[in-house]
Amino acid sequence: MLFLSRFFLSCDLQQPSISEMHSPDLLQYDKLIDKFDTLLFDCDGVLWRGNELIPGSKEFVEKVRKAGKQVIFVTNNASNSRNQYKAKFDKLGINVERDEIFGSAYASAVYLKYNLKFPADKKVFVVGMKGLEEELESEGIQYIGGTDPKYNTITPDIDFNAIKSGLDKDVGAVVAGFDVMLNYTKLSYAYSYLTSKEHDVKFILTNDDSTFPQSCGLFPGSGAMSSPLVVSSKRKPTVVGKPNAPMLECILKQKQLNPDRTLMIGDRLNTDISFGQHGNVKTLLVLSGVSTPEDIEKEGIYPDYIARSLKHIR
Amino acid sequence: MLFLSRFFLSCDLQQPSISEMHSPDLLQYDKLIDKFDTLLFDCDGVLWRGNELIPGSKEFVEKVRKAGKQVIFVTNNASNSRNQYKAKFDKLGINVERDEIFGSAYASAVYLKYNLKFPADKKVFVVGMKGLEEELESEGIQYIGGTDPKYNTITPDIDFNAIKSGLDKDVGAVVAGFDVMLNYTKLSYAYSYLTSKEHDVKFILTNDDSTFPQSCGLFPGSGAMSSPLVVSSKRKPTVVGKPNAPMLECILKQKQLNPDRTLMIGDRLNTDISFGQHGNVKTLLVLSGVSTPEDIEKEGIYPDYIARSLKHIR
Repeated sequence: MLFLSRFFLSCDLQQPSISEMHSPDLLQYDKLIDKFDTLLFDCDGVLWRGNELIPGSKEFVEKVRKAGKQVIFVTNNASNSRNQYKAKFDKLGINVERDEIFGSAYASAVYLKYNLKFPADKKVFVVGMKGLEEELESEGIQYIGGTDPKYNTITPDIDFNAIKSGLDKDVGAVVAGFDVMLNYTKLSYAYSYLTSKEHDVKFILTNDDSTFPQSCGLFPGSGAMSSPLVVSSKRKPTVVGKPNAPMLECILKQKQLNPDRTLMIGDRLNTDISFGQHGNVKTLLVLSGVSTPEDIEKEGIYPDYIARSLKHIR
Repeated sequence: MLFLSRFFLSCDLQQPSISEMHSPDLLQYDKLIDKFDTLLFDCDGVLWRGNELIPGSKEFVEKVRKAGKQVIFVTNNASNSRNQYKAKFDKLGINVERDEIFGSAYASAVYLKYNLKFPADKKVFVVGMKGLEEELESEGIQYIGGTDPKYNTITPDIDFNAIKSGLDKDVGAVVAGFDVMLNYTKLSYAYSYLTSKEHDVKFILTNDDSTFPQSCGLFPGSGAMSSPLVVSSKRKPTVVGKPNAPMLECILKQKQLNPDRTLMIGDRLNTDISFGQHGNVKTLLVLSGVSTPEDIEKEGIYPDYIARSLKHIR
């Protein structure tokens, strides 16, 4: 309690600024940025909320680029591929290259291909959207389900027999992520693959965020949408996205980063900040998204730095 | 382990029969039935699987009726109202009165009205099907959501703003049950009510069965379908159906039953058998549905009696 009281005093939320958790002294932007070569940014709740830019985020990214820092955008949102994400950055006026983006859809495809050595003749059953399909395609992985109209019906008359008799014996994994087309038919196919005694079917979640931030508020997230499969199949999935290790391991390795000189910036303690901590990089919580200062002690997850938003890092 | 070994020996699954768990002696039908005045039957997995009668179940019900026993059918399936359930019994040739049926949809409506004294000017937001709507109507409870086409869309372009701005201030409860029309729009409305800071919204699940048995196999059940709401809202719902107390309390009270002379027959340890045990009635597990003998020790739930199916009670 004493520790947190000191933290809040130093945080000075009425006149927002960065504070170092282990010291009541206020940090200046230059001092902070000088400590790092690479900044990893979460997107939703840090750069934007839904389709609206968070004021000052674009300018912050430009400022750190000018200071010669490497920037990487790390997102758990698996509804978009990197190409779709780049289009979103472009639309919002943030300059970015496709290779600077790491989404959980892409990371899931990479995980399947390189970590699981997913066989080329096997297929993934997708509970997800176009972005996840695109990233699987980019790694040459076959899939069914997803956006195929056959699996996106909404009807009171489910043909249960057709589902059980229509299973594809080549399905070797179910990959589930954010899916606004979620429906009982698709869930029933995925459940049937996961519980099939005839097939060895891996179970992968792109990420397990419980909520999904939009500019008008929160909505159920990937972790909520995939929970029917976890509950009904009683299986424990491999979760690729934040706060789990696979995605950060992939980034550090592929970009050859020094963890000591890398800062993870995010708005969620239990995804972004834990993610950085699991990978032994320093962490900065911005209060422009989901987590509040009250959540810090409640969740017992302590970021190294805190700021009201990117604009308030000065 | 010793206890269970004795149980399995006495169970003699190759020549199925009832065995009393605390004795290796095989029980005869007459001896068992004589102990009870009332038999509570689970339906799915006991009387039928999906739309197919389990052989001998109809004859067993007729036999106990002839022996002067009271029969009550208790089902967690909230997709049907009692009237819809009676139609199913009729179709399968099992003679039953509406008042002999207790479904979790009906029990949820009764729970709202009598236990929660749900105000007449408030509405329920329904994540469920026609049967749940009918039972709410039968108790004079207003509702929105459910089967209304407005809430049953499947589209990649969710209008998030329309959801948050379209909340009805009169909603005082979210009741979620089995819903094959489950979709992200409906879940987003339900989530928004559950997390609204402006309204006091109760959270009720008709039941939380993880799977739903059909003749061709298992599918995700009510507990799986409502899990996105539990995960995203981080709220603990009141669960009306088996194995929880509200439904059995309601039955014992309304029918003025003596628990000592009542037997609960079901196919699921963690719903039917626990349900009976919570209400201090004796329990009989039939192996014609979900639970297997191996599950008994695994789950640590010990029925008083066991039989391969109703036909094998002789």
